[in-house]
Amino acid sequence: MSEPDSSLTVVRDVASLRRRVKVWHGEQRTVALVPTMGALHAGHMALVKRAKALADAVVVSIFVNPTQFGPNEDLDAYPRRDAEDWALLNAAGVDLIFMPDASVMYPDGFQTAVQVPAVSQGLCGTHRPGHFEGVATVVTKLLLQGLPDLALFGEKDFQQLAVIKRLVIDLDIPVDVLSVPTVRERDGLALSSRNAYLSEDERAIAPKFYATLSAAAAAIANGADIKACCAQAERAVLAAGFSSVDYIEVRVADSLLPLKVLGSEARILGAATLGQTRLIDNVKIPAQQAGG
Amino acid sequence: MSEPDSSLTVVRDVASLRRRVKVWHGEQRTVALVPTMGALHAGHMALVKRAKALADAVVVSIFVNPTQFGPNEDLDAYPRRDAEDWALLNAAGVDLIFMPDASVMYPDGFQTAVQVPAVSQGLCGTHRPGHFEGVATVVTKLLLQGLPDLALFGEKDFQQLAVIKRLVIDLDIPVDVLSVPTVRERDGLALSSRNAYLSEDERAIAPKFYATLSAAAAAIANGADIKACCAQAERAVLAAGFSSVDYIEVRVADSLLPLKVLGSEARILGAATLGQTRLIDNVKIPAQQAGG
Repeated sequence: MSEPDSSLTVVRDVASLRRRVKVWHGEQRTVALVPTMGALHAGHMALVKRAKALADAVVVSIFVNPTQFGPNEDLDAYPRRDAEDWALLNAAGVDLIFMPDASVMYPDGFQTAVQVPAVSQGLCGTHRPGHFEGVATVVTKLLLQGLPDLALFGEKDFQQLAVIKRLVIDLDIPVDVLSVPTVRERDGLALSSRNAYLSEDERAIAPKFYATLSAAAAAIANGADIKACCAQAERAVLAAGFSSVDYIEVRVADSLLPLKVLGSEARILGAATLGQTRLIDNVKIPAQQAGG
Repeated sequence: MSEPDSSLTVVRDVASLRRRVKVWHGEQRTVALVPTMGALHAGHMALVKRAKALADAVVVSIFVNPTQFGPNEDLDAYPRRDAEDWALLNAAGVDLIFMPDASVMYPDGFQTAVQVPAVSQGLCGTHRPGHFEGVATVVTKLLLQGLPDLALFGEKDFQQLAVIKRLVIDLDIPVDVLSVPTVRERDGLALSSRNAYLSEDERAIAPKFYATLSAAAAAIANGADIKACCAQAERAVLAAGFSSVDYIEVRVADSLLPLKVLGSEARILGAATLGQTRLIDNVKIPAQQAGG
């Protein structure tokens, strides 16, 4: 890891963030934002790398947003690793870290909410009430605080990505939203800050989730019945040792509407709990075989 | 009325609006936006005049926003007077008219909503369900489409103004919101595009609404009981010939929270129906007398 580079600054208030972005824009430099909740892993760093390739200056925000956690979720347990995060971002050549605390994001009297009702419906929206409203609101704020030219999000949180794409179009937020494919361990497990919760035994089971979704996606592409494949995948995940499955469903990729005809951009998405840890993942359904 | 000035342009799409604003900003000129639903009167023109005084370039948007009308409201009847509006704005030295149609504002798949729940609660929020969600969403869009340096709104729609001030703070929209006092006829009636609905007899009665609110505000400033004054004002408005009163209430000016202690910024607000026409108005409660 390289030595700390004096060009990496951490700012904690909106005025300082805007001042920096304004200077870059005044120099005709493009600015990318990578919003994160910290506890960075190679998935985040793939977003940073893509941002570095596409923009002249890269801002990474670190904010564990309380409004997107439900009352029984893991807000307090969510991993915080500031020193490690900063070192990673420094080594990656990030220009600025924006790290507001909750009183900056939600001052007294705060009450406004951004809702993206159709895309937020079903899938994780059913199992995490209020989650996507919290995500939509905080991402709107981050985009309007920084006014970057582009913002990057991972495909691992696929419904979140769809919510963000939709609200950026609908509210005319002047930013390009780009997504980056999920980064996986060698055994296929999608990188997630929550993987840190897994015991050794659970960690050995976890990759079965991706394997099962991938097998279902391949079967569906080959003409198998979607409903039967999803039901079969649920059984396989439970048999592998997961304690419960929230959903395994096939949707139209961008709108997340129920799929009527295979052939457009179809995606299989799932959420399941292993021990105390809820994992999500999703896989593109490959173009189906002719006559399949 | 002056001849059409070739500097006044009408644009109907967001890209054209942004292009113009970008040119102005590139020249270090400040830009003000005055959002309207057209059918312009002297109240709107006071906003334009203030905008001209404060900014280097003035954009007026004209959009009769369907999402802020309820199913039984006057969307179809709402007055449209494009030619007259353009002539007025041209004579006033406005630089650009932004006049999108509904398909530009709400394309296929549109679904995002901005909600400002506390400020939208009660008063007109009770009597026009969904109205302030429609207002909050369209104003967010207009501000993000144009990205002006400032935006001006009238105090006549006082709850709307409070909703907009709140969402601009909460969502970190980079714009200054300024308000302009209500413009009135000589007899005190607040200017409103809906005054065009009044018959001659109703027009003679209409000023009693403002007179009654003003009298109540003065009595309250002099120490009279707030609840009794509001009830008395309701009776006076009905006695004057109004068919119903939606509310007459005293609130804290910016938050619109119920008033606990007179002394902060108190405002009396009312809505009442005269014939088929719903009128709203509001009056600042003057600083109370010592010992009052």
